[in-house]
Amino acid sequence: MIIIKIGGGKEINLRAIINDLKSLDDKFIIVHGANALRDEIAEKLGKPKKTVTSASGYSSVFTDSESLDIMMMAYSGLKNKRIVEMCQQAGINAVGLTGIDGSVVKGARNKGIRVRENGKLRIIRDFSGKPKEINTKLLYLLLENGFVPVLTVPIIDENNYAVNSENDDIVAVLKEALDAEKVVQLIEAPGFMEDPHDSNSLINFISKDELENRESQVEGRMKRKILALRKLFNNGKGIVYIGDGRKENPLIDALNGKGTIIK
Amino acid sequence: MIIIKIGGGKEINLRAIINDLKSLDDKFIIVHGANALRDEIAEKLGKPKKTVTSASGYSSVFTDSESLDIMMMAYSGLKNKRIVEMCQQAGINAVGLTGIDGSVVKGARNKGIRVRENGKLRIIRDFSGKPKEINTKLLYLLLENGFVPVLTVPIIDENNYAVNSENDDIVAVLKEALDAEKVVQLIEAPGFMEDPHDSNSLINFISKDELENRESQVEGRMKRKILALRKLFNNGKGIVYIGDGRKENPLIDALNGKGTIIK
Repeated sequence: MIIIKIGGGKEINLRAIINDLKSLDDKFIIVHGANALRDEIAEKLGKPKKTVTSASGYSSVFTDSESLDIMMMAYSGLKNKRIVEMCQQAGINAVGLTGIDGSVVKGARNKGIRVRENGKLRIIRDFSGKPKEINTKLLYLLLENGFVPVLTVPIIDENNYAVNSENDDIVAVLKEALDAEKVVQLIEAPGFMEDPHDSNSLINFISKDELENRESQVEGRMKRKILALRKLFNNGKGIVYIGDGRKENPLIDALNGKGTIIK
Repeated sequence: MIIIKIGGGKEINLRAIINDLKSLDDKFIIVHGANALRDEIAEKLGKPKKTVTSASGYSSVFTDSESLDIMMMAYSGLKNKRIVEMCQQAGINAVGLTGIDGSVVKGARNKGIRVRENGKLRIIRDFSGKPKEINTKLLYLLLENGFVPVLTVPIIDENNYAVNSENDDIVAVLKEALDAEKVVQLIEAPGFMEDPHDSNSLINFISKDELENRESQVEGRMKRKILALRKLFNNGKGIVYIGDGRKENPLIDALNGKGTIIK
């Protein structure tokens, strides 16, 4: 079983990725983002992304009900269905799903953020959460009958509300639930970069132990990225491929080690 | 098997309909619209509905690629997922689908419209089509395993392109493919009205033969409506209930004959 995570950047070559899928022998599931599309639609609708700053000074995205509406339009609607359409054109019998369909990705809603408003502290809660459990029954039902699940946000919380979540976290929980041997991440970069600003700093191989060392050496966005990668090895097994989603053969190249391999 | 068609009007009481679903003993499938939402989003995005006038003088909606994008946002994205969410909250394990997911509704793309442009006749083709065939395998797989399909547009054409289609036509093809005994249509009116402008003109019962007579007596929108109803009896079987989707118990009332019954 292979999980293919397709980034939601503008330059991702979806058609090329889907064309590469035809060469896979293993069963696979697609998990995709749509952040560039979401931002574009939000902008056009005059509803730019909201962020809040917590009392302790951290800034984070705030998903209110309207933001979730826009997420559903961009991720679950337009992007998901266009990917399914491309798959069908490539002879892949895709079925688009979000985590709420068949409760396929069950999660826990985030507890809220402590903010200071007019001098008073209060907790505000948005529609975001962490995935905890996969309803493998629906996924296996589809996979065993020749369908390819194409999964995206939202996920469903403990009270059956739709909530936003990180695709990285969904992939980690999915990998463990399905005991997937391989995860391929297709992004807008050649792979995992020593220095994100230097295109010659591609790292071809990292051991999972090395990930841990690196995590302690870096800060900010890079630290979060490494933490997300480390979660993929929670069960100690598997291989992760990170490859350039903008190329002619993004998936084949990634599996052939042209990006970064972690194991 | 019951097919429940939920209209896409603004005043439809989705929460009440879904609450009524809990009282059904039969298996069921939901087919829903989202036209009010689609128009609202299109308006906000500055992309109002396009219409073209054919060389012979008929006006019709023209679904270009951008309109299809907006349809995917409204129907397949926001409306479909909010209905699935409400179902989950009511304990119904819904799975949202469009006709392109698993190629569940296969159709044929419309041949195009003859228009006169700068004095010259030419054919312009949009992304619209008619449903022809249902992939019952996926639907039965879901139904037999406790999932409730929640279906909407687009459908998929003979070349695997997503195309817009009429929900009425989808329901007719679905009814025959699944041999459904009952179709319930929940709309923004008390039922089938003798005179759409007179709320006291509700017709409680029409035989399917009477439909045929009526069709020959009316024009325009009403004729199309009756034709759509007649298609539901293509196989000569079943009962159709039309009920008020704005009430407290839309589905229960419709099944109890408070709207219109056709058989």
